Amino acid sequence: MKKIHGGVASPLGFKASGMHCGVRVSRRNDLALIFSNRPCQAAGVFTTNKVQASCVVINKQHLISGRAQAIIANSGNANCMTGKQGFRHSKEIIQTVAHELKVSPKSILIAATGVIGKLLPIKKILTAIPELVENLSRKGSARAAQGIMTTDHVVKEVAAECMIGNRPVRIGAIAKGAGMIHPEMALSSRKHATLLCFVTTDAAIEAEALRSALSAAVQDSFNLITIDRDMSTNDMVLVLANGAARNVRIEKDSKNLEKFVATLSALFLALAKLMVRDAEGATKFVEIMVKNAESATDARAVARSVASSNLLKCALFGSDPNWGRIAAAAGSAAANVDPWKMRIHIGNILVVKNGGGVVRDNRKLDRIFSRKNIRIVVDLGVGPSSATAYTCDLSTEYVRFNSAYKT
Amino acid sequence: MKKIHGGVASPLGFKASGMHCGVRVSRRNDLALIFSNRPCQAAGVFTTNKVQASCVVINKQHLISGRAQAIIANSGNANCMTGKQGFRHSKEIIQTVAHELKVSPKSILIAATGVIGKLLPIKKILTAIPELVENLSRKGSARAAQGIMTTDHVVKEVAAECMIGNRPVRIGAIAKGAGMIHPEMALSSRKHATLLCFVTTDAAIEAEALRSALSAAVQDSFNLITIDRDMSTNDMVLVLANGAARNVRIEKDSKNLEKFVATLSALFLALAKLMVRDAEGATKFVEIMVKNAESATDARAVARSVASSNLLKCALFGSDPNWGRIAAAAGSAAANVDPWKMRIHIGNILVVKNGGGVVRDNRKLDRIFSRKNIRIVVDLGVGPSSATAYTCDLSTEYVRFNSAYKT
Repeated sequence: MKKIHGGVASPLGFKASGMHCGVRVSRRNDLALIFSNRPCQAAGVFTTNKVQASCVVINKQHLISGRAQAIIANSGNANCMTGKQGFRHSKEIIQTVAHELKVSPKSILIAATGVIGKLLPIKKILTAIPELVENLSRKGSARAAQGIMTTDHVVKEVAAECMIGNRPVRIGAIAKGAGMIHPEMALSSRKHATLLCFVTTDAAIEAEALRSALSAAVQDSFNLITIDRDMSTNDMVLVLANGAARNVRIEKDSKNLEKFVATLSALFLALAKLMVRDAEGATKFVEIMVKNAESATDARAVARSVASSNLLKCALFGSDPNWGRIAAAAGSAAANVDPWKMRIHIGNILVVKNGGGVVRDNRKLDRIFSRKNIRIVVDLGVGPSSATAYTCDLSTEYVRFNSAYKT
Repeated sequence: MKKIHGGVASPLGFKASGMHCGVRVSRRNDLALIFSNRPCQAAGVFTTNKVQASCVVINKQHLISGRAQAIIANSGNANCMTGKQGFRHSKEIIQTVAHELKVSPKSILIAATGVIGKLLPIKKILTAIPELVENLSRKGSARAAQGIMTTDHVVKEVAAECMIGNRPVRIGAIAKGAGMIHPEMALSSRKHATLLCFVTTDAAIEAEALRSALSAAVQDSFNLITIDRDMSTNDMVLVLANGAARNVRIEKDSKNLEKFVATLSALFLALAKLMVRDAEGATKFVEIMVKNAESATDARAVARSVASSNLLKCALFGSDPNWGRIAAAAGSAAANVDPWKMRIHIGNILVVKNGGGVVRDNRKLDRIFSRKNIRIVVDLGVGPSSATAYTCDLSTEYVRFNSAYKT
């Protein structure tokens, strides 16, 4: 992957902007806008929560055409469980952005993240939109990335270039995470902080190829991270492809699609890891690699189950090498797990084989568990498949922070 | 339900004992024994974790006959993920108890709870067994209940009487809980603290009727509580029915079975609530009632999902009435949830209807969220079924406690 600068404004034809309008009490940015100077092939994956914000419902309708040209997003308020008024607010935002950009409302996608159940300060947003549009710039990606942050500390922005045929194609993305992160996103389906990721590319790509690229790249990145096992109502990844690179069009089941997916996957994985490193209250970054599972589905289920265990995450917080909790969490997954075949490594130390513990040097294990970056490998020994999930510890700070989120 | 005294030793023909042998470092009891003076009809439900302690595997074998006469249990060590040596230890304990009780090893059931992956101090246990048997008494139930406690603060012991035909039949039970509590137990299946519950009854009951009674009673009690969403490797509920009440034998699909199940269910629910009230670090007791679900399965799934939400549980800890997290957790369940039809009450205050919030008096809601006992009702509005789950808050104390469990 060849990294480049400029985030979502690095692909040709894209501009971005971000600003503060007052949805958030603090002076941090709370609005983001991404715009392509020409219509795009567009696709999205969305939360599979049955309680969905108006933005999720509206985007699905807008994406039926497979076409879009801009993404408007706010942080500080998820505009979810806000009844019909919430839907009207989303539509007013879309109308205003479309009017200012001089495009059809149908070509606008919308996103939101923040508290659930509170009406948006709609006048503040509508009043700010002309300035937001005015500020669109080839250098606006970082400001847009700031505009979607909630409890994030770090701006999440990446971009890379890959060759399709003899033409360079650029992909840029911004994202946010931090809490209520346990995404299970699907192409046309239904699931709250919320994971948002907006992708731009100047690649020329056929509609079905774009959808399958997005779906594949999400599966082994965002859908394999967990911060608190709570699935959001607003999770979405949106991609806009405007074709400005003038490459030979990427078709389904092609070598070029494989290259595009590889670059997209690498960008998503980088963003997914940034989210976990920036998770609410987290003091550790933990990689759970599952090997030799019966199927890819099993590998993913076991990796996500171990990564989700509150007890393991408390042990990680306390640097208490309680590996029994790894074994128990693996066994609770809906997958083929045979304790007699399972091997568990923590760092480079084998801790479990033949159905029992094999640790000789507890001090070495203590040292590994005290690190800020911990890698756990669960070798199921029953098949050919693997998957890696990413998680963090569960800290007293996480509990304190989330016990006073709304008030 | 007519409550009676004596716990597991209240049914005719049963004795119990408990003592300290040294599995636990503290001087608290760590061994428990229950014995019937005659062979019993026996049944058990076990964790559905694929990583199972030797005691779970052995009991399933012993219960194939449907017959047993005694239950031996230790706390302080789960004897799980202890390899073949762990199995040998379980069998040595069974052999020694059988020898002292002068019954067949096949008639002994065994249980354990505590840390995973550590070999039992087997000599201490074997040496103590003669005294444990010696101390069997009609007044030994509370000592036995103490013997299975780990992080529990409260002894969990109940007993009741019901009339079968014209004869009184007694049912007694002891249990423990406190952490790693998210049971999904099934009759002959596979799932870690661990939930243990031992039931005795002097009812005469046919084998299949006993199994179906146990299965039914567990579904709407133990299987609907959650403390930390971590499923144990050692969960089990065992029941011994010795027929000493000389009632007309309870048959499958009979009115008498319904009466027996009603009493058993009431006892299990009382114990399940005791477990949640005594949960690690818990400061609140929370009831999640789901009404008007499409099916009983849906009602249970939504109730468990809301009860399991880390974010909601943090909000409960902080008395922060963040009802959006209730809606999001309901929507993430694998069930028919329509946000436009869902109504949510917290205490007696309607907070959600028509897809949005309806709270007028936030101070009243704050007061209800500050209580020690909170009832949340999620009315799905799509069908006839209901279920109630029980949970606690997620406290900084829970995290602190479980970050230094092993060391």
